[in-house]
Amino acid sequence: MTELPVPAAVQLSPDGSTVRLLDQTLLPAEERWLDLTTAEQVAESISSLRVRGAPAIGVAGAFGLALGVRDRIAAGGDAKAAIAECHAMLLETRPTGRNLGWALDRVADAARGVPNDAAADAAMAEARTVARAEARMCQAIGEAGRTLIPEEGCTVMTHCNAGALATAGLGTALAPIYVAHAEGVPVAVAACETRPVLQGARLTAWELGRAGVPVTVVTDSMAGALMANGGVALIVVGADRIAANGDVANKIGTYGLAVLAAHHGIPFYVAAPRSTIDPTLDSGADIRIEVRDESEVRKGLGRKTAPDGAGVWNPAFDVTPHALITALITDGGILREPYTASIAELLQGGGVPSEPGDSP
Amino acid sequence: MTELPVPAAVQLSPDGSTVRLLDQTLLPAEERWLDLTTAEQVAESISSLRVRGAPAIGVAGAFGLALGVRDRIAAGGDAKAAIAECHAMLLETRPTGRNLGWALDRVADAARGVPNDAAADAAMAEARTVARAEARMCQAIGEAGRTLIPEEGCTVMTHCNAGALATAGLGTALAPIYVAHAEGVPVAVAACETRPVLQGARLTAWELGRAGVPVTVVTDSMAGALMANGGVALIVVGADRIAANGDVANKIGTYGLAVLAAHHGIPFYVAAPRSTIDPTLDSGADIRIEVRDESEVRKGLGRKTAPDGAGVWNPAFDVTPHALITALITDGGILREPYTASIAELLQGGGVPSEPGDSP
Repeated sequence: MTELPVPAAVQLSPDGSTVRLLDQTLLPAEERWLDLTTAEQVAESISSLRVRGAPAIGVAGAFGLALGVRDRIAAGGDAKAAIAECHAMLLETRPTGRNLGWALDRVADAARGVPNDAAADAAMAEARTVARAEARMCQAIGEAGRTLIPEEGCTVMTHCNAGALATAGLGTALAPIYVAHAEGVPVAVAACETRPVLQGARLTAWELGRAGVPVTVVTDSMAGALMANGGVALIVVGADRIAANGDVANKIGTYGLAVLAAHHGIPFYVAAPRSTIDPTLDSGADIRIEVRDESEVRKGLGRKTAPDGAGVWNPAFDVTPHALITALITDGGILREPYTASIAELLQGGGVPSEPGDSP
Repeated sequence: MTELPVPAAVQLSPDGSTVRLLDQTLLPAEERWLDLTTAEQVAESISSLRVRGAPAIGVAGAFGLALGVRDRIAAGGDAKAAIAECHAMLLETRPTGRNLGWALDRVADAARGVPNDAAADAAMAEARTVARAEARMCQAIGEAGRTLIPEEGCTVMTHCNAGALATAGLGTALAPIYVAHAEGVPVAVAACETRPVLQGARLTAWELGRAGVPVTVVTDSMAGALMANGGVALIVVGADRIAANGDVANKIGTYGLAVLAAHHGIPFYVAAPRSTIDPTLDSGADIRIEVRDESEVRKGLGRKTAPDGAGVWNPAFDVTPHALITALITDGGILREPYTASIAELLQGGGVPSEPGDSP
């Protein structure tokens, strides 16, 4: 396994009592870890972006569900009711990402399959399995995507943060970069700052800096000029949900980068584990897009940046049609057009790749 | 003349002693007017973006040059030396915009053409003429661009601020909107916030709000999604310098919008007075692009938004090739391809349009 650039963004204490999260709303100014002991605290951390990134949200949600089931059963509750209540509460925190529902379903199914008094342990064991599986999927994505980076090195553009902070491992979009960097390939990154919440400037630049990968921050408005100047060899972004036809929902601004990439003939890759794929959706038109609070745009970074009378539109994600995507980099390899076929084949290949020691 | 939505952003006191500027770095939180009495103060206000927008910079520079010549002659200086010194100092403040050099040249030429003791008055008179000419050019742009807005109304996207705050009149990109609004056409605006300095969110939304024009602020990263959703009928932006072939330098992010517009089949217009055209430059490749301080990106809006170790690229402008521009909206009418011919014809048609009472 390639070394993580930073401590895992979502951790579980050895006794399973506490979920430990790096509060990403405070980065890069402050590195503060939160110790969460209830499902409600985990839900709040997801809603308020203390933990973010579809795979990391999935892992945090899995742990949160296990904590909630444990508490409710300890208080004399029924396991099935506890599972249903916590599943619904956690699922509602962020509607667009696929991995959260996938992880919650896995933990819920595991807990439902055992007697009431074994449900809490089964839930926590499955949540740990989900976390390990996500970490392995990151490594596999890194190794697959590594083959797309030229040996002589290059500058890769990315958007938002799809790195270690967004997952339980090496990241998705950043995993190929970490793998290449560990092999001595001189890869550099252009990080789009990613308004409104600035995950690129605050988080991607921070974790790449920790890993020693050269990184340059540009505002989202500069991406086109940087491509026109020849400063971008390829683009890799993550994904929050992928439809059966390969359409991708990802952080707002991704679609614009994909259009710019096509205009400049720059390869545009989307890196994601299979847990991000939602085969129940035919296309991106079916993906529910979360619209977040106006204050993220209106107040900029704490200061008032738009007048009170102005309207604001703040969708957290956009949809990139598969025709603009050069390839999907998955834990099951590189997928190309026709995506409907290549995605179906990946999913038929089985669930999460397993390895010895994975069983609860 | 269509009513200005806000007091003119660059004013001269009746006795010609003081240049009055709205400090645009403080908007929308605070409306503070500055009284400047020296060329050095005007230069500082231009460099630090207290006054910005190529036409407004030109007018402020013209007044600044007149103040500087007045002071130096009053202190016993030679007029020609004073003109040369102040011209150089003011021209260096912002290298990309064309209007500043155009306005400074006009004032300098007027002051050089008279005896030493008349130079100060000649300079100030010419500066006033420049201001009036820019205001008239805005009105003409508004009337020409108005013809491109459908009678039933629509939503126009714009970038940065090319409105009253950026000119000595109605604006450039916003002038057609103000003219249409005054005629009762239900026109609305989608304002891209325009990182790093947020002129769209802070200034465009503010002045449109004053005028009663409905405005919605989106981050630059949302422009593509809004176009894909059908929320943009046409795009109008301003320009800082236009080459002889129609290539346009404008606020960073303009190029990306032009590529997105072409992808979506949305008309993309550039509105500018003829004073923005630089016929000495064959193409946009010859335009000098100002790179501003990293802190604008690194600190976001006062807060630290990128880690210290990360590099930053902060070009203030980008170049949009003429092939992506549907038409230029000028004070001499709508120009279309081939731009080399239509621009040459406009410029051969004479200098600034004159009107009675314009002579010093």
